[in-house]
Amino acid sequence: MFTTPLQPFHALAYKLGIQLQVKRDDLYPFTGGGNKGRKIQTILEMAHKKSYNALVTTGGVQSNHARATAIAAAENRWPCTLVLHGDQATLDKPASNLLLSQLTGAKLVVCQPDQIAEKLASEYAMLRKNGLNPLLIPGGGHCLAGGLAYYNAVLELTNDWIPDYIVLASGTGTTQAGILAGIEQRKWSTQVLGISIARSNPRGSLVVDEAYSELRDFLKFNSAKKEIIFYDDWTLGGYEKVNEAIYHTIKEISQYGLIMDPTYTGKAFYGLLELIKQKIIQKNSKVLFWHTGGLLNLLAHSVGEIMK
Amino acid sequence: MFTTPLQPFHALAYKLGIQLQVKRDDLYPFTGGGNKGRKIQTILEMAHKKSYNALVTTGGVQSNHARATAIAAAENRWPCTLVLHGDQATLDKPASNLLLSQLTGAKLVVCQPDQIAEKLASEYAMLRKNGLNPLLIPGGGHCLAGGLAYYNAVLELTNDWIPDYIVLASGTGTTQAGILAGIEQRKWSTQVLGISIARSNPRGSLVVDEAYSELRDFLKFNSAKKEIIFYDDWTLGGYEKVNEAIYHTIKEISQYGLIMDPTYTGKAFYGLLELIKQKIIQKNSKVLFWHTGGLLNLLAHSVGEIMK
Repeated sequence: MFTTPLQPFHALAYKLGIQLQVKRDDLYPFTGGGNKGRKIQTILEMAHKKSYNALVTTGGVQSNHARATAIAAAENRWPCTLVLHGDQATLDKPASNLLLSQLTGAKLVVCQPDQIAEKLASEYAMLRKNGLNPLLIPGGGHCLAGGLAYYNAVLELTNDWIPDYIVLASGTGTTQAGILAGIEQRKWSTQVLGISIARSNPRGSLVVDEAYSELRDFLKFNSAKKEIIFYDDWTLGGYEKVNEAIYHTIKEISQYGLIMDPTYTGKAFYGLLELIKQKIIQKNSKVLFWHTGGLLNLLAHSVGEIMK
Repeated sequence: MFTTPLQPFHALAYKLGIQLQVKRDDLYPFTGGGNKGRKIQTILEMAHKKSYNALVTTGGVQSNHARATAIAAAENRWPCTLVLHGDQATLDKPASNLLLSQLTGAKLVVCQPDQIAEKLASEYAMLRKNGLNPLLIPGGGHCLAGGLAYYNAVLELTNDWIPDYIVLASGTGTTQAGILAGIEQRKWSTQVLGISIARSNPRGSLVVDEAYSELRDFLKFNSAKKEIIFYDDWTLGGYEKVNEAIYHTIKEISQYGLIMDPTYTGKAFYGLLELIKQKIIQKNSKVLFWHTGGLLNLLAHSVGEIMK
């Protein structure tokens, strides 16, 4: 188990008129860190207990989850296969997450999105045929163990500073679900505000709710369920879609020493700024922004677009 | 103050026939982390105490120290000027450290190496003329406060696992000097093995010794001075010089989940492998490899060269 710092950004907090602490999960291990790093740590502990000895998963060519999985497998010398959707040509000049995944020696299978299920099945079967016991991890680490990682992450926080709001980039929903379960356990009145980086409602809220319900069943909770708050106002049409306003936010917030990316945290921070503007988050509130990573996505991005 | 994890790499340790723990300073804050992040934190604390309100420093265009300085300044909303030696054209397509430095809004002055002193002086004078009290930080954070950061970093280690050897990439010498002072304070018999990534002896050892002596004076030490061990066998001719053997080491070690870079840690780890091979580090020794960062250097590197 690793922990990450909770860091105040005083000048930025002053500008926004809130109390601000940033939970630096971007600094989690599995080089490149992020929420996918934290999830894979818990998934790995489970895999050890259940005698798995190989990992198979899927994501885009710049998937943080795939990279974290590859590094986790390498630490254990377990065979690892990543089924990645994207352009075959990226393998010739791998950047960022794809470079790190390739360095670990993981088997990389690049295919079209509609081939993923078939490729996962055949790669899984091939490992089994070789006498291995592979764990097939859902894309994004979207599973019970992934949610438990964030339930435990909330238990890392102290009672010294109980946030009114936790704001985070919400994708597959596991991170938000885990945080909700953690807050319920702590009996805090904190509101967890998920800013969708891809999905629209009602589906977006629903998958958070499903993951949260699964966690509550597992943890045998019988307290009052926390409200699912999932804003789909700033997805810009989907995953990796971005606009000038997001670039502007990244540049503006960097000038307070906080580095964001266009795929995840840049969108989430843009949402936070809007919620403050709309007075949904009130002045002087205690806001914990959960930095879920994304540096490797920033660095893989076409930089000219950000800086122009 | 931030701390970083001490992480075992069991499979890699087994392969090398040593006990191995990696001190993950690559996960230090100031996005991109590394020993330059740890140093700037202590430099900043000193700057606050002495009422500085602007920062000026120097390095190459991919300087980790310059990037950490820019982020540290941004957190405080202090004006920051970076005098960077390199190619002016890199500013049009900034990558890795240079991108992050540019995002913070720091003033970037790119020049030739022989113009650094003059540019530093004029930029410093300009800030003073504007009524500011700028701190001029030596390149690489090579100063007393930088050394103290690593003295304190050693105090972070516990007595549960006292290393026989600490192995690290040694550049300007401050990190090694700080660690030596820390080990002297702890009264450990640990040998600190600096692997030079640029300088040759006798100069390389001498600058470590000077920084160590300055720290000992400051800390009023009167115990026996630790031996300076500074290997210049694997510099490959200087800073950022690299060869196939380093690329091979990076690839090999990545397959155990530990990601290195060609400029710093890749060379240091190559040195560690040689020291084991030469039986200077004996089998089953307790080795702490201090991971001083470098991910942004890896990502700025011509990737094709590494993977071919």
